Amino acid sequence: MAKPSDSKEKTLAAAARLFCRRGYHGTALHDILAASGAPRGSLYFHFPRGKEEIAEGAVALGDRAVRAFIAQVAEASRSAETFAINLARGMAARLEASDFREGCPLATTALEIATDSESVGKATRDAFAAWEGEIAQVLRRFGIDKKRAAPAATAILSQLEGALLLARTYRSLEPMRRAEDAMRLLVTSPG
Amino acid sequence: MAKPSDSKEKTLAAAARLFCRRGYHGTALHDILAASGAPRGSLYFHFPRGKEEIAEGAVALGDRAVRAFIAQVAEASRSAETFAINLARGMAARLEASDFREGCPLATTALEIATDSESVGKATRDAFAAWEGEIAQVLRRFGIDKKRAAPAATAILSQLEGALLLARTYRSLEPMRRAEDAMRLLVTSPG
Repeated sequence: MAKPSDSKEKTLAAAARLFCRRGYHGTALHDILAASGAPRGSLYFHFPRGKEEIAEGAVALGDRAVRAFIAQVAEASRSAETFAINLARGMAARLEASDFREGCPLATTALEIATDSESVGKATRDAFAAWEGEIAQVLRRFGIDKKRAAPAATAILSQLEGALLLARTYRSLEPMRRAEDAMRLLVTSPG
Repeated sequence: MAKPSDSKEKTLAAAARLFCRRGYHGTALHDILAASGAPRGSLYFHFPRGKEEIAEGAVALGDRAVRAFIAQVAEASRSAETFAINLARGMAARLEASDFREGCPLATTALEIATDSESVGKATRDAFAAWEGEIAQVLRRFGIDKKRAAPAATAILSQLEGALLLARTYRSLEPMRRAEDAMRLLVTSPG
């Protein structure tokens, strides 16, 4: 029998993937149970507040994955330009590897739930804001001045999120490639 | 009693608004009926294939609204730069007027359904592609050369979609304002 902590992690991983693919409302508790293989009892034990509590945990998981991805890309890049381009390429690779099913781990849930669940809304809000902050910090490390780094980070995250939406809908990476050029302009302009 | 055509239009208008606010899966048929005031029988009469057929019609409605908006903004703008900025401001105004509930009319549905419904997936795909095409055409009219207009239009649509996602999640128009600067750069760069 799986340890409780295993069940909890498996449940959150399955939920995060399903929410990413079909959104919060399109995922039923029995879908999560079936995908995780966790026993039904563990679900009520670990998440007494139900689906909303699972969503909070799934958002936290997606948040950590994206932060780790940003840090890893920053580590492997030598300039603000290569950093932005590598973000786009990493996301494009993930999208393609999932057969265009997995774009941003939080976007679908954020759009569905923004006004319905205070706790999930807050979790997505905090996650996006943290990504913006981390992108801005990397831009500063690569020499973008303080005043420009924050707005450029917002525009980079918007560009990536929008391009992922289009790429996923089209089942084509072309919007991601065009995002690279737009972001290159953004970080290399004399501002 | 409402004429059948009135019922059909009311049903589609209510569905489009609900799909925009909470997405396809978060909207039940009885929500659409309650919001539209249309009689239940008319729903089965006008949409024999059910919710998926309603979604196709709602996507078409959202598509037409966005195309009309793009045409209207183009008409009121004097340059590629003011065109892009006015797109962002018009969308920001709509988002704010809806208390941050209505961003892009199609984004939520597109993300939820991309892989589940062939017909709704195709409708959202065709709509986004048409918006890109119309934005590109306006850019060319304002002097952006043919080769640059299409990729710039994709980047503008991505920037707007991503900024709407962030603005809606944050309940703040700041990402829309930052999108203006990013798009200004995009359309005024000599590249």
